[in-house]
Amino acid sequence: MRIGIVTKPGLTEARDTLEALERWLAARAMDAVWSVEAAALLPAGGRTARPRAEVARGADLVVVLGGDGTLLAVADLVGQAGLDVPILGVNFGSLGFLTEIRREEIYLALDAVLAGTAAYDERMMLRASTRRAGAEAASCLVLNDVVFTRVALSRMIDLAVTVGDQFVTSVRADGLIVASPTGSTAYNLAAGGPIVHPAMQALVLTPIAPHTLSHRPVVIAADRDVRVRPGPANADAAVYVTFDGQRGFEIAEGDEVIIGRAPRPIRLVRAAARSYFEVLREKLGWGQR
Amino acid sequence: MRIGIVTKPGLTEARDTLEALERWLAARAMDAVWSVEAAALLPAGGRTARPRAEVARGADLVVVLGGDGTLLAVADLVGQAGLDVPILGVNFGSLGFLTEIRREEIYLALDAVLAGTAAYDERMMLRASTRRAGAEAASCLVLNDVVFTRVALSRMIDLAVTVGDQFVTSVRADGLIVASPTGSTAYNLAAGGPIVHPAMQALVLTPIAPHTLSHRPVVIAADRDVRVRPGPANADAAVYVTFDGQRGFEIAEGDEVIIGRAPRPIRLVRAAARSYFEVLREKLGWGQR
Amino acid sequence: MRIGIVTKPGLTEARDTLEALERWLAARAMDAVWSVEAAALLPAGGRTARPRAEVARGADLVVVLGGDGTLLAVADLVGQAGLDVPILGVNFGSLGFLTEIRREEIYLALDAVLAGTAAYDERMMLRASTRRAGAEAASCLVLNDVVFTRVALSRMIDLAVTVGDQFVTSVRADGLIVASPTGSTAYNLAAGGPIVHPAMQALVLTPIAPHTLSHRPVVIAADRDVRVRPGPANADAAVYVTFDGQRGFEIAEGDEVIIGRAPRPIRLVRAAARSYFEVLREKLGWGQR
Amino acid sequence: MRIGIVTKPGLTEARDTLEALERWLAARAMDAVWSVEAAALLPAGGRTARPRAEVARGADLVVVLGGDGTLLAVADLVGQAGLDVPILGVNFGSLGFLTEIRREEIYLALDAVLAGTAAYDERMMLRASTRRAGAEAASCLVLNDVVFTRVALSRMIDLAVTVGDQFVTSVRADGLIVASPTGSTAYNLAAGGPIVHPAMQALVLTPIAPHTLSHRPVVIAADRDVRVRPGPANADAAVYVTFDGQRGFEIAEGDEVIIGRAPRPIRLVRAAARSYFEVLREKLGWGQR
Repeated sequence: MRIGIVTKPGLTEARDTLEALERWLAARAMDAVWSVEAAALLPAGGRTARPRAEVARGADLVVVLGGDGTLLAVADLVGQAGLDVPILGVNFGSLGFLTEIRREEIYLALDAVLAGTAAYDERMMLRASTRRAGAEAASCLVLNDVVFTRVALSRMIDLAVTVGDQFVTSVRADGLIVASPTGSTAYNLAAGGPIVHPAMQALVLTPIAPHTLSHRPVVIAADRDVRVRPGPANADAAVYVTFDGQRGFEIAEGDEVIIGRAPRPIRLVRAAARSYFEVLREKLGWGQR
Repeated sequence: MRIGIVTKPGLTEARDTLEALERWLAARAMDAVWSVEAAALLPAGGRTARPRAEVARGADLVVVLGGDGTLLAVADLVGQAGLDVPILGVNFGSLGFLTEIRREEIYLALDAVLAGTAAYDERMMLRASTRRAGAEAASCLVLNDVVFTRVALSRMIDLAVTVGDQFVTSVRADGLIVASPTGSTAYNLAAGGPIVHPAMQALVLTPIAPHTLSHRPVVIAADRDVRVRPGPANADAAVYVTFDGQRGFEIAEGDEVIIGRAPRPIRLVRAAARSYFEVLREKLGWGQR
Repeated sequence: MRIGIVTKPGLTEARDTLEALERWLAARAMDAVWSVEAAALLPAGGRTARPRAEVARGADLVVVLGGDGTLLAVADLVGQAGLDVPILGVNFGSLGFLTEIRREEIYLALDAVLAGTAAYDERMMLRASTRRAGAEAASCLVLNDVVFTRVALSRMIDLAVTVGDQFVTSVRADGLIVASPTGSTAYNLAAGGPIVHPAMQALVLTPIAPHTLSHRPVVIAADRDVRVRPGPANADAAVYVTFDGQRGFEIAEGDEVIIGRAPRPIRLVRAAARSYFEVLREKLGWGQR
Repeated sequence: MRIGIVTKPGLTEARDTLEALERWLAARAMDAVWSVEAAALLPAGGRTARPRAEVARGADLVVVLGGDGTLLAVADLVGQAGLDVPILGVNFGSLGFLTEIRREEIYLALDAVLAGTAAYDERMMLRASTRRAGAEAASCLVLNDVVFTRVALSRMIDLAVTVGDQFVTSVRADGLIVASPTGSTAYNLAAGGPIVHPAMQALVLTPIAPHTLSHRPVVIAADRDVRVRPGPANADAAVYVTFDGQRGFEIAEGDEVIIGRAPRPIRLVRAAARSYFEVLREKLGWGQR
């Protein structure tokens, strides 16, 4: 069995955990592949280090130490490579929606994976394809969301939204979030969108500060593509599109971003101790005022 | 072919439409069964009239003239009887989410039904079962929502919500809405819930004016039951539960309402001229400020 | 100097505090007047006990031990009696918006009152007058809010709202809150209303779950009366009005509730250690997600 | 009497109105001063044209033809020049919150001004001063709002907000709006802020898509300054500040924007036919769903 290990760059507080993990794997004669950033946190020598993008290849499991951002990046790499490697996300800092395993629970979770008793959450990913002048100009996989926003001085953007072959609406707003169920608890929540259970096959369309006060978030089935096009009212104002909050570029009238379900979901090792709603209650402080 | 006809009681402005419909059906030698309220709007004599609850039995189609409220009542009757009769909802008054066919479009829609070219929307219904002292005390089918509210002087109710075997949260609020996708555009919208496309198999849980400000609507798959139980903090305050806003009763600590997908969806004749999003845009004034 | 002491009925956890307070006052030869409920928490004998409604009369300060609810009731009594006695609210349980002094800070606060160095917050109160058939049928003072709600099976109420001589709007909703700045952090907050700084002379009108999705809370100056009248669309549905969540009754078409600033504000002893915004941050968990 | 006339640049549909206005003024031997853009819409010759910034100087009234944006720009010019010239805003296009007089009502309004019977609305303006390295780096007057936003790829900004000498809170959000009562019905409304009656002396602080879900808009009295400082969590992300949506620049940690009431309000000629709430109902579609 082969385990890939990725950390958030410069996560010095993970050093002890990494050393213990290395001993644990060695004691079980397991093969470890370290991302360059993870290896850099340990004393030099005697271990296999690879660029982050190559850690998942050939691995049976990738352990991610960091926050939700690091896990998003790894999910993208795994998805892009067309792999079906499960991910075990360990949070450093506050409990994450994605990295829901605490550092003291790592071995419990690894034992379960080895014993074949671990539970996995399948999370649908989104594929976003940007078309310009009739051809695909860019494409990527995202786990959380595709976000369209205005830039700087402009007060709003104007977007035309289509689902399948049906026109939904024009949105004049600060922006628009197209989120997966997993992403529904990220930026979508701050913009007033609903929580969508991560086992669902659905997309959420949430306008950000819409000018039309009756606009509301819309949840649709994931089996039809969403098409978003900058509308004529943008005038000189550019529209910016970001993918999982990590990469982005400007689009203009005539361009089109097509968002649908990715061919393959990502698999996350589930913390035995914690249900989805338990994480939700803890993260959102439900039960307090 | 046999057509059932139901109207909102006392809908005198439907008289001309009913007379024309009667002639249209007679000219095609079709069998009409009139609800007592519908027959009462026409000159006496020579037609089959039945209590509303019996109109659907044996019919190939039920035409409903009125508003969404009348259609909700008919959907309940059709569902309770375990029938699979499609419903054609004609709105008198403003465009309805359910009665989306305008009176001038009736014959177009009927022609399509007869020719077998009509499109139907299947809408999932909810089954709500109330348990008290270990036994089922009441049960009904709803198309829109089951709503839990406080009564009179009490400032809030306290509810414990479970999905499948997982505890979701305690809600201290004015109330809680458990809506179907169809019901998502009814009361749920006023309480801040999202729009859920009616083709989805989902439930929406929306708290009404929750005390915990971080509470948000939650969308879940329809394959697991939702259980709602009055919690200990209700003290002397009663909890009231309503079904499609039409019937209701008080429940108390120890009682439990179990809500899940009904075994059979209802079928609505779709207006050829109008998509779901078009109705949404018109009803919610999207495109205006 | 004469100190009135009022507790929430049956607040046994205040016993030690009350005994210590009694000794502290005796040592300073100060006159104490105990509410019947407060006296009932102490061993019998040798102290002046009066019904709660009479404790404030002749007192130089009323100390309230309990929660915000108890303080609301005392504020009403002080206001109704036309007195200008300051109130020192001590919270038992979680920090209150009104009872912001902790039990361990009582003597610090009392010392400041005696030394004349205490700071006081003046909070405007509302006067609500209900008119029926051309005459005043009821009147009361409230510190937080006047709330109009629907009852039981009815899905909404219809209210006509006027400010001064200007018609504002009809509201079809679950209800309407007319709150003082002090009340803006109570029920108003759960219904989506804004926080209004308690030093302002203002009223907030917040609809609860309005059918018209573009309705928003409105803040107006406190120098003009708000008039609320049940509208024709209530039909058979009753409208219920509550005052500070403590008392209430039904009103019907033809009735009118007139809400304006009360002639005199209430005075609260301010905790030296805590600013208004500090209480806000702590109560609402600002700084957390 | 001397009337200044300003139009939105290129507003060709105002040509007829401008020609009629010119004849009307000439018939009354009144002095007209035209902005360069207004004059450009008329046949050349025989009239006084000045840069927009100079039209108000020496005028007894400025007539603005266009939308709310044009009026905002003129309010800024009048305010900056320390003038007390009233403004008559005529809307071309949809009814404006500021330009509430329709083109067919111009002469009614002008007659009222001449006869001394016109009613005026005084609207408080905000003064925003940006300090950098201990000195004032920029200053301006705004009628609607000062808006702090994030730029492009960054997911949020971190701002520290102080009112008078009291720290209010840190805000991690898409942005923060500091609005006047007049500005409360502009961008503030889209971000979920309350409507504040324009006669009030108040400021509204509304976070845009805050990460902490319990954040709410806060209304404060206008007699204390609000200070906004970029916080440490912005890291590499810049904060952008805009004034009435017309001008803006980047600020960074160490900078501070101080916002308070401007020394002088602006005066708007009120449409005889329309109250504030009437404009509100029409603009927001109250009374519809």
